[in-house]
Amino acid sequence: MKPERLQAFSDGIFAILITILVLEFKLPDYQEGQLFYAVVQQWPILFAYIATYAYIAIIWLFHHDMFGRMSQTNAQLNALNLLSLFLTTLLSYSMSLLAEALATGNAADMSFAFSLYDLLALAISLSYMLLYRYLSKSSSLPICKDGAGYAANMERFPLISMGIYSIAFIVDFFNVYLGLAFLAAGIIFHGYAYWRASHERFLQQPQAKTRTGNQQK
Amino acid sequence: MKPERLQAFSDGIFAILITILVLEFKLPDYQEGQLFYAVVQQWPILFAYIATYAYIAIIWLFHHDMFGRMSQTNAQLNALNLLSLFLTTLLSYSMSLLAEALATGNAADMSFAFSLYDLLALAISLSYMLLYRYLSKSSSLPICKDGAGYAANMERFPLISMGIYSIAFIVDFFNVYLGLAFLAAGIIFHGYAYWRASHERFLQQPQAKTRTGNQQK
Amino acid sequence: MKPERLQAFSDGIFAILITILVLEFKLPDYQEGQLFYAVVQQWPILFAYIATYAYIAIIWLFHHDMFGRMSQTNAQLNALNLLSLFLTTLLSYSMSLLAEALATGNAADMSFAFSLYDLLALAISLSYMLLYRYLSKSSSLPICKDGAGYAANMERFPLISMGIYSIAFIVDFFNVYLGLAFLAAGIIFHGYAYWRASHERFLQQPQAKTRTGNQQK
Amino acid sequence: MKPERLQAFSDGIFAILITILVLEFKLPDYQEGQLFYAVVQQWPILFAYIATYAYIAIIWLFHHDMFGRMSQTNAQLNALNLLSLFLTTLLSYSMSLLAEALATGNAADMSFAFSLYDLLALAISLSYMLLYRYLSKSSSLPICKDGAGYAANMERFPLISMGIYSIAFIVDFFNVYLGLAFLAAGIIFHGYAYWRASHERFLQQPQAKTRTGNQQK
Repeated sequence: MKPERLQAFSDGIFAILITILVLEFKLPDYQEGQLFYAVVQQWPILFAYIATYAYIAIIWLFHHDMFGRMSQTNAQLNALNLLSLFLTTLLSYSMSLLAEALATGNAADMSFAFSLYDLLALAISLSYMLLYRYLSKSSSLPICKDGAGYAANMERFPLISMGIYSIAFIVDFFNVYLGLAFLAAGIIFHGYAYWRASHERFLQQPQAKTRTGNQQK
Repeated sequence: MKPERLQAFSDGIFAILITILVLEFKLPDYQEGQLFYAVVQQWPILFAYIATYAYIAIIWLFHHDMFGRMSQTNAQLNALNLLSLFLTTLLSYSMSLLAEALATGNAADMSFAFSLYDLLALAISLSYMLLYRYLSKSSSLPICKDGAGYAANMERFPLISMGIYSIAFIVDFFNVYLGLAFLAAGIIFHGYAYWRASHERFLQQPQAKTRTGNQQK
Repeated sequence: MKPERLQAFSDGIFAILITILVLEFKLPDYQEGQLFYAVVQQWPILFAYIATYAYIAIIWLFHHDMFGRMSQTNAQLNALNLLSLFLTTLLSYSMSLLAEALATGNAADMSFAFSLYDLLALAISLSYMLLYRYLSKSSSLPICKDGAGYAANMERFPLISMGIYSIAFIVDFFNVYLGLAFLAAGIIFHGYAYWRASHERFLQQPQAKTRTGNQQK
Repeated sequence: MKPERLQAFSDGIFAILITILVLEFKLPDYQEGQLFYAVVQQWPILFAYIATYAYIAIIWLFHHDMFGRMSQTNAQLNALNLLSLFLTTLLSYSMSLLAEALATGNAADMSFAFSLYDLLALAISLSYMLLYRYLSKSSSLPICKDGAGYAANMERFPLISMGIYSIAFIVDFFNVYLGLAFLAAGIIFHGYAYWRASHERFLQQPQAKTRTGNQQK
C-alpha cells in the first residue's frame, strides 16, 4: 500500500476525532435567565476539551512526521497504525469521563477518571514507541526514507512520556489534583518534544538539504 | 469517473464511520463515587467497539486494495460500491444493538441482535463477492489493472466468510454465546484473509515487480 | 481557487453527511426480550435512511461530474456551491422528520414532513439548475472544460425533477402516501438521470476521446 | 511539513465542522398532529445554523486562500493554525447557546449567548490577524509565495471585523437585538471582505498572470 493513502486515511480519522470532540459540549440544564451561570459551571468540559484537542493535534503532528518519511508500508505497520488510531479515538470517551468527574468533584470518581486517561495516554505512547522501534529495526527494508536514525532518535520521546503518565497514574491514588497536574505535564511534554524534534532537525543542515532535494520530484 | 476520487470518497466514509463509532460510548448513569463500577459495566460496548472497529478497518484494507488496482470505474461499479458502503454504515447501529443486548443479557434480545449483525456481515461479504465477480468477468474492459486473475482469486474470501456468518446466524437460535463466537471468528477470518492475500502477492515476484515499475510515474 | 480543492471540500461534506445520517438510528425504547419488535417498528427510519442515502449519493455523482469538468472556479460558483451544499445538509433533519411522521402515522404530520422534504429537494434541484445555467452561459470564461454544451444539456434533469417534486408537494395535501410515492419517484428519477447522462456521454465518442487525451497528463 | 497536508487536514476539520452543525437540529417535542407548529418554533436554530454555516464557509475561503499561497510551513504557523481551528470548532457550541437563548427569549440569556458568540468571533478574527501579521513579517523566509504584500494587505479585514464584534459585544449589554444585528453585520462583512479581496486581486493583472504561470507545473 502506498503510504500516501494510509496517511490520508489516518489524517481523516484525526480530523474527524478532533472535531467531534466538540459534540461533548452539550447545552446545560439551566433556569431561565441563568444561562451564564450554567455555562460557567461547564468549565471542566472546556478544560478537558482544550487539553484533549491539544493532545490529539500534537499526536497528529508526530504521526504526520513519521508517515511522511515512508516510501512504503506493510501489513505490520498498517496493524500498528490502526491500533494506535483505535486507542486515540477512545480519548473522546475518556475526555467525557474526566470532565464529568471534575464537575462532580468526587475524589473516587476523579481518581478513576484521571487514571483511565493516564492509562490511555500511556498506551498511545507505547504504540508510538513500537512504531518507532519497528521503523528503526527494519532499516534494511525500503520503508523509511531518512533511515533508521530518525526513528531511533524519536523513540526516546514516547519513552519519557510513558514515564510521566506512569507517575500520574500512581499519584492519582494519593492526590488527584497532583495526578491531574502530571497528566497535563505529559501533554505539555508532547508539545515540547515536537518543538524540540523540529528544532533538532533544523540544525542538521545536510539532512534538511537532502529532503529539499527529494521534494523537487 | 477517475477511481482516485471514488476511492477518496469511500476512504472518507470509512474514516468517518470508524470514528463516529466512538460516539456510541456514552457517559453511564452512576451514583457519585461509583463511576468506576458504572464504566466497568460498559464492557459490552467496549467489546462491540473493538470488534466493529477491527472489522471496518479490515474491510477498508480490502476495499483499498481493490480500488487501488482500477484505472477506471463505471456506473455499475459506482452503484455496487455505494451499496457496499451503505451496508457498512449500518454496522454502527448494529453494534449498538449488540452491545445493548449483551448488557441486558436477555437471551431473546441477544439472539436477535447477534443474528442481525450476522446478516449485515453476510450482506457486506456478498457485496464484496459481487464486486470481485464483476471485476473478474469484465477483464476485456480497461477496468482492472492487474487483470481478472486478482479478482477471481480474491472472490473466495467473501465466499468463506459468508459461510461463517451463515453458521453464526443459525447457531444464534440455539446458543447465543456460540453464535457470538462464530461472529467473532468471521471478523478474525477477515484479518487472516487480508494477511494471507498480502502474503501470497508478496510471493508472486513478477507481478510485484510490474507494480513497482508502474509506480515510477 | 483551483477546482480540485473545492471538489475535495465538497466531497468531504458529502461523505460526512452521508455517514452521519446513520446517527439518526437510535436504540429504541423496548421491554426486555422485545428488542426484535422494537427494531421492526423502526422501519420508517430505515426506509427514510435508504432513500436519503441513495439521494445524497446520486447528488454527489452529479456534483462530482460537474466540478470534475472545470479548470477554474470563481466567487459566484463558490457561493452557489456552498448554497447547494447547505441545502443538502438539511436533508439529515428532514429525513428525521419524515421518519418520525411515518412512525406516528398522523396524517397532518406526514403531510407536513413529506412536503418539507419535497421543498428541500426542489430547492436542491433549483441550485443545480442554477449551477448548470451559470456554466452554460459563461462559456467565454475559462471555467468549463467540455464547453457550455455539457451544462446546457444537463440543465433539463433538475428541471424535470423540480416538476416531480412540485407535484409531490401538491399531492401531499390530498393523499400523503401518493405524495410519498412522488417523492420516491423524484429520487429514483435522479438515479435514472445519472445513468442516462453517463450512457449518452458514452455514445458521444469524439468527446470521450478528448477527455481521455487530457488524462494522459 | 508540506503545506498541502496541513491544508488538507484543515479542510477536513472545516468540512466536518460545517456538516456536524446540522446535528444541532433535533426532533422537537410535539403533540401528534402539531409537528408543523413545533418545527416552525425551531426558527432560532435555523437562523443560527444559516449564520454559522455561512460564517464557517467564509472563514474556510479565507483560510484556503492564505494556505494555498505558502510553499512551506513551520512550527509557529502550525500552532497558530491549530489555535485558529480550535476556536472555530467552538462555534458549534456557541451556535447552540445562541439558538437556545433566542428560543426562550430571555434578555439576560440572550445577552450572554450573543456576547459569547461575539467574543469567539473576535478571537477567531484575532487569530487570522496574527496569521497575516506573521506571514507579512516573515517575508525573508521561503514561506509565502506571493510575498508579504498579500498578507499585509489582508490584515485589515480581521482588524475591521474585530471592531464590529467589539461593538456587538458592548451593544449586547444595552439592546440584545441591536447586538445581534451587529453580530450578523460582522458575518456579512466577512462575505463582503472575501468578495472584495477576490475582486482586487482580479484587477491586479500582473500578479494574476504570475499565478497562472505557476500553475502550469
